[in-house]
Amino acid sequence: MFVTAPFFFQADITPQSTELSAEESHHALRVLRLQPGDDIALTNGTGLLVLARIRETSNKQCRVEVLSAQQQTPRPYRIHLAIAPTKNNDRTEWMLEKLTETGVDQVTFVSTQRSEREKINLARFQKVVVGALKQSQQVFLPSIQGPVSFEKILADESGQKFIGHMNAQPPAHLKHVARPRTSYLMLIGPEGDFTEAEVAAAQQAGFTQVSLGPTRLRTETAGWVACQTLHFVNA
Amino acid sequence: MFVTAPFFFQADITPQSTELSAEESHHALRVLRLQPGDDIALTNGTGLLVLARIRETSNKQCRVEVLSAQQQTPRPYRIHLAIAPTKNNDRTEWMLEKLTETGVDQVTFVSTQRSEREKINLARFQKVVVGALKQSQQVFLPSIQGPVSFEKILADESGQKFIGHMNAQPPAHLKHVARPRTSYLMLIGPEGDFTEAEVAAAQQAGFTQVSLGPTRLRTETAGWVACQTLHFVNA
Repeated sequence: MFVTAPFFFQADITPQSTELSAEESHHALRVLRLQPGDDIALTNGTGLLVLARIRETSNKQCRVEVLSAQQQTPRPYRIHLAIAPTKNNDRTEWMLEKLTETGVDQVTFVSTQRSEREKINLARFQKVVVGALKQSQQVFLPSIQGPVSFEKILADESGQKFIGHMNAQPPAHLKHVARPRTSYLMLIGPEGDFTEAEVAAAQQAGFTQVSLGPTRLRTETAGWVACQTLHFVNA
Repeated sequence: MFVTAPFFFQADITPQSTELSAEESHHALRVLRLQPGDDIALTNGTGLLVLARIRETSNKQCRVEVLSAQQQTPRPYRIHLAIAPTKNNDRTEWMLEKLTETGVDQVTFVSTQRSEREKINLARFQKVVVGALKQSQQVFLPSIQGPVSFEKILADESGQKFIGHMNAQPPAHLKHVARPRTSYLMLIGPEGDFTEAEVAAAQQAGFTQVSLGPTRLRTETAGWVACQTLHFVNA
């Protein structure tokens, strides 16, 4: 079900809230030019969906009356994508937008031996994710983390762990090895792929090598195809 | 299996070819700075994969010796995506790149009542698709067509026909109604969605309304998710 009211994100919103944050007030009043009597939808990014009506507006502040509040339940599985940032930053931002639209719980950027980018702008990435959350009217905000070391990701103990790698001997497809309704940690390498040593270390740490299909995918496409595959396994 | 040699597209390549086109000679000699003795891979975009060795180079011409030629078989199903071009052209180009990476047979741009863009640059789109074909080392070049009228798409008689629409009453998910191993025509609307009259006309013409999942997707995301769903149905 999609709401027709403008959709807002405010981390501290509750069923008792009476006003919008400065940022969302600005968006409501200056960008969308909403008026008293207009209805809006808000989420706190952790599952709460609030429908509210604008009651009073001043120069910079927007007071609201909550009409209804509903806590939504999360998916019965959790997707954590750990991926090397792409050299071209737009490709990573595009991926974050698409992952938010179709659903992901956490994205962690990982430093690998062949990474072509070390620095990332987390604040910018979070802005992209919030924008996509609002646009696609979702109530669970993906957590964006990093950069972390390859070793740190290997030490992660959460659920089923997979590594995508362009192997001469293609391993089993992700869809055949992922079990439904669990937590997944999916590791995707940089444009130049993981080194053999990295793949061996990941296997040692309990990661299963998987294929994502018959075609050769860019890093950001592989990240998205992997997450989409996990959604399908659970559908 | 991925080839490690640089990958070229030349529509008229055959197992008897002895030289690259002017465009691909330029790419080989000026961009990649290849030399006699270097190996390359080429496709004609209709399933032929040729491995060749550069033999002679002049200022603008690159002569080759074909080492092997293999005609690959197409997928046992056909995906035709008919979609409204997005207002922001980058979004459509991104979608074409991703569809080429993961596989699509034809993309036709459709004019609809709420389309926010009438003109498209087919030559530019074809360039994007050829670039993605080479990058992802595929041998079947997607056909890019349009713009065509909504009525013309409705008259298309190929295989199973679906229309994606943001419905108050979500219909069955595409994955539950698509039959494996057939031809699909998937129709996706513009940012403002199809009109009710368009949806009714499509149903009259034999299109089945389908859902693409629980989240609200942008036009270009919906196009990609639909094609990915059809790949899964056939996997």
